Amino acid sequence: MERKKFLLNENDIPQAWYNVIPDMAQKPAPLIHPATKQPLKAEDLYPIFSKAASEQELNTTDSWIEIPEAVREMYRIWRPTPLVRATGLEKLLDTPAHIYFKNESVSPVGSHKLNSALAQAYYCKQEGVTNITTETGAGQWGAALSLAAKHFGLELAVYMVKISYNQKPYRRSMMQTYGAEVISSPSMSTKAGRKIITDNPTYQGSLGTAISEAVELAISTPNCKYVLGSVLNHVALHQTVIGLEAEKQMAMAEEYPDVVIACFGGGSNFAGLSFPFLRHKLNGETPDTRFIAAEPASCPKLTRGVFQYDFGDEAGYTPLIPMYTLGHNFCPANIHAGGLRYHGGGAIISQLKHDNIIDAVDIPQLESFKAATMFARSEGIIPAPESSHAIAATINEALKCKVSGEKKTILFNLSGHGLIDMAAYDRYFANDLTNYEVTAEDIAKTTKDLEKLL
Amino acid sequence: MERKKFLLNENDIPQAWYNVIPDMAQKPAPLIHPATKQPLKAEDLYPIFSKAASEQELNTTDSWIEIPEAVREMYRIWRPTPLVRATGLEKLLDTPAHIYFKNESVSPVGSHKLNSALAQAYYCKQEGVTNITTETGAGQWGAALSLAAKHFGLELAVYMVKISYNQKPYRRSMMQTYGAEVISSPSMSTKAGRKIITDNPTYQGSLGTAISEAVELAISTPNCKYVLGSVLNHVALHQTVIGLEAEKQMAMAEEYPDVVIACFGGGSNFAGLSFPFLRHKLNGETPDTRFIAAEPASCPKLTRGVFQYDFGDEAGYTPLIPMYTLGHNFCPANIHAGGLRYHGGGAIISQLKHDNIIDAVDIPQLESFKAATMFARSEGIIPAPESSHAIAATINEALKCKVSGEKKTILFNLSGHGLIDMAAYDRYFANDLTNYEVTAEDIAKTTKDLEKLL
Repeated sequence: MERKKFLLNENDIPQAWYNVIPDMAQKPAPLIHPATKQPLKAEDLYPIFSKAASEQELNTTDSWIEIPEAVREMYRIWRPTPLVRATGLEKLLDTPAHIYFKNESVSPVGSHKLNSALAQAYYCKQEGVTNITTETGAGQWGAALSLAAKHFGLELAVYMVKISYNQKPYRRSMMQTYGAEVISSPSMSTKAGRKIITDNPTYQGSLGTAISEAVELAISTPNCKYVLGSVLNHVALHQTVIGLEAEKQMAMAEEYPDVVIACFGGGSNFAGLSFPFLRHKLNGETPDTRFIAAEPASCPKLTRGVFQYDFGDEAGYTPLIPMYTLGHNFCPANIHAGGLRYHGGGAIISQLKHDNIIDAVDIPQLESFKAATMFARSEGIIPAPESSHAIAATINEALKCKVSGEKKTILFNLSGHGLIDMAAYDRYFANDLTNYEVTAEDIAKTTKDLEKLL
Repeated sequence: MERKKFLLNENDIPQAWYNVIPDMAQKPAPLIHPATKQPLKAEDLYPIFSKAASEQELNTTDSWIEIPEAVREMYRIWRPTPLVRATGLEKLLDTPAHIYFKNESVSPVGSHKLNSALAQAYYCKQEGVTNITTETGAGQWGAALSLAAKHFGLELAVYMVKISYNQKPYRRSMMQTYGAEVISSPSMSTKAGRKIITDNPTYQGSLGTAISEAVELAISTPNCKYVLGSVLNHVALHQTVIGLEAEKQMAMAEEYPDVVIACFGGGSNFAGLSFPFLRHKLNGETPDTRFIAAEPASCPKLTRGVFQYDFGDEAGYTPLIPMYTLGHNFCPANIHAGGLRYHGGGAIISQLKHDNIIDAVDIPQLESFKAATMFARSEGIIPAPESSHAIAATINEALKCKVSGEKKTILFNLSGHGLIDMAAYDRYFANDLTNYEVTAEDIAKTTKDLEKLL
């Protein structure tokens, strides 16, 4: 019988994270200071982030960055995660493709987010920080950081996007169980939040807005730093443990992926799985591997956004980031994949997309839930609405193989489970969900003034 | 650094389940046919259960029963499960004890219940059954059987205890996502349900009532069998994969448990973890190992019930079972540990308790949530309210070691995670939960006529 799971041992947990930038022929353009319009230096980030994270953010020379032992020790709670051959899904699709998934849903908080949360909380603690703030969309990141903050003895305030705060009360409860404070965003507790509530009282929030609130609180609070769950280079860096483990596990399976797929919000799980495999493409060993970012059709920055400098947040507190963006004022539809409701794509991934090294596809909400249901019934695991976009893209690739007869090896990231998102499944089965169209006019409106930012 | 997790490979998944009865000096008294008052034969069970399950139920001679390959193949989705050293909890308690837990929460449905669900669904399918019915308390069993039924191509109707149906809507959604039909119990769809609703319109349901409804539907529907999630011998049998794996993993850790602890509802997860270790006590190799069943103080059958023949269900459809019971009409308080709200203890475990081979403790609801929160914050995993009873008992034992200085090795079963039970945690943090007292008068009332059943 073929093996279903490929398991590693604790000593296979990577010793170092992989930084893809040194291997990129075309590096991402620098982050820009919004006031001086000059390339950012690490010390410009110190008021917001921990020094270690700030330095990692701008590190373009070191390919490997050592993982602190205290972080690896916490990784041992659930890492290494299994690589699974999706034999049930293959059978259901009747495809000659071999489908594998990296199961990051086995983390105690249910997603990959803990990989970076632990690292960032650790660095803050090391530097004497006492309080941290963050934003969260669906709550996956907030739950992960709550656990990390508790472990390292930090107080945490989480701004949770209003629509998710109401849609996903259980994830709010998780954060509270780990001991964090959770605030619905936009809130009256910050200038950025007050302005948005005043301008638009029914606004359901977005990741961009929640980031503004969290950054503002961090800047205005003594001994407090801000911690981010996606988009930035250092977050992508921390997530590479996913792909580094998967690389070993694919070797155990005696296969190498022809296609690597992950869902795409700000890029953290996509980067985490794909960068370690991508390095073999960048150095010419595996030129034909395809990398596919699966984003929601309602928030299609990689497939339909513009490649330009933009803010990472709604209010414009962050540095200017060179990226594919729908504009920092783009307000995504209220899809249940709250973790994908973000306007921009992160500097590294945007550059790779611009250079045609990676691809992107957009998945309508109903297609993502159809794929999720097929996966749940054939593989047993109910996926997060975010991860379901990767599953939908995987199914599309596997069905192409069925037509062509090609026996491709497809690897996707199951970034999280959906047990906290069951209300979304209820709505899907009740035919109460819809797809959302984004028109060219919508995008033109929110991207038209971006050039003036520089 | 000491290892945190002890992981096995797929070929370590047991080939056979362990049947403890042949090793018991004092066997449990036989099941009794309620009409004839004679010891039950396997064929008496055929109208209700699959033949294979019926035969396993009455098997007192075979120590090992082969696990069908199709069931082992499904086990490979998540088994073997990790054995984890709870270093975070040890540190928090500052105890010299070594605490280990078997992490059954990593199953795709979030609990150990899938171990027996797959076996029972498989046997039904093999015997040409098309429809199955069951009961569920908190929904852990119902979710597991929904996945198993979908995999083997059976239609499933689940009677879910009304209080849990309302308290835990997400678990109902899980069952529906896997394709099962879920009915709140008591319901108007059965004679047993109609009678209870008529007698007591505000009745919030119990496992005993839900079993009555499911059995009635099975008996009255062509080609339909009933499937049970706990209490009976064949269910305990299927769960022994837990302890058989844990035995190998404790050997990897180079320790042997002095104390083995699991929460106790009908006995399935307690039996699953403990029986494989118990066999070494029964054969005299490890006479000093203690086995502790942790039951809720609001439903204390092992600690305060009577040892007598009783029905397994409220309406009296099942065989008479020799067990510790609070009476089949005992209505447990509405605690959040819905899986523990059952009046009786199962024949094998009751006999072992009667013979002082195992112990039992009762845990008040608030103590269980306090323990759960300590565990979540120190080990990262938010436990199911049921499993939290085992954690509370473990903490009590570890704190005794702190006083005595003994370096005991404690092993408990983390039977499930609590991500679907977050509403209960919300209520706990809001000081909105309470303990429930059971008086001697309550128990006297519901047990007084049991002798007349024989």
